[in-house]
Amino acid sequence: MQRVCFLLKVRADRLDEYRERHATVWPEMRAALSATGWHNYSLFLREDGLLVGYLETEDFRAARAGMEATGVNARWQAEMAPFFETLDGARPDEAMTPLTEVFHLA
Amino acid sequence: MQRVCFLLKVRADRLDEYRERHATVWPEMRAALSATGWHNYSLFLREDGLLVGYLETEDFRAARAGMEATGVNARWQAEMAPFFETLDGARPDEAMTPLTEVFHLA
Repeated sequence: MQRVCFLLKVRADRLDEYRERHATVWPEMRAALSATGWHNYSLFLREDGLLVGYLETEDFRAARAGMEATGVNARWQAEMAPFFETLDGARPDEAMTPLTEVFHLA
Repeated sequence: MQRVCFLLKVRADRLDEYRERHATVWPEMRAALSATGWHNYSLFLREDGLLVGYLETEDFRAARAGMEATGVNARWQAEMAPFFETLDGARPDEAMTPLTEVFHLA
């Protein structure tokens, strides 16, 4: 099992709406994440918009590819893209670069 | 069970040593964390020194207080303090302000 952590930056003027959208993620989107191996997946938001993602998965590359193949992800990411800063044209899910784990205690 | 995420900033000129120290955390420190309720605890480091902590615990306030009461934590935090930026005199463990969880998928 891989533990994956990534960072994104939500626009400061969209924080409230971002929170609201993530309190009501589409059931189809949640089901697709589970089906493609995204487990124990949390998003944490700092007041300035820094967003931390954490998940556990057998294979993050496969989990990303699995979501990439779903229509619901394309629709969700298209709606989320305007919430994020400086993605240089990439979709939010394409900008999920994992950080290096330097310590773990079970 | 609470999922807790916090951020700290490691000094850019101490990253290598920080990584090395966390590859060999004292067994007594690991045992104290486990005994005081720090579970599934990971630290992730971005290349610029941004450090993300993630853990699961029954009660983060109690987990912090439990570590606070141990001698090994005082020794560990004293050694770690010089690795961090802008703690304003606080120990690293005192600066672990939790971020808000905005999404979770089991």
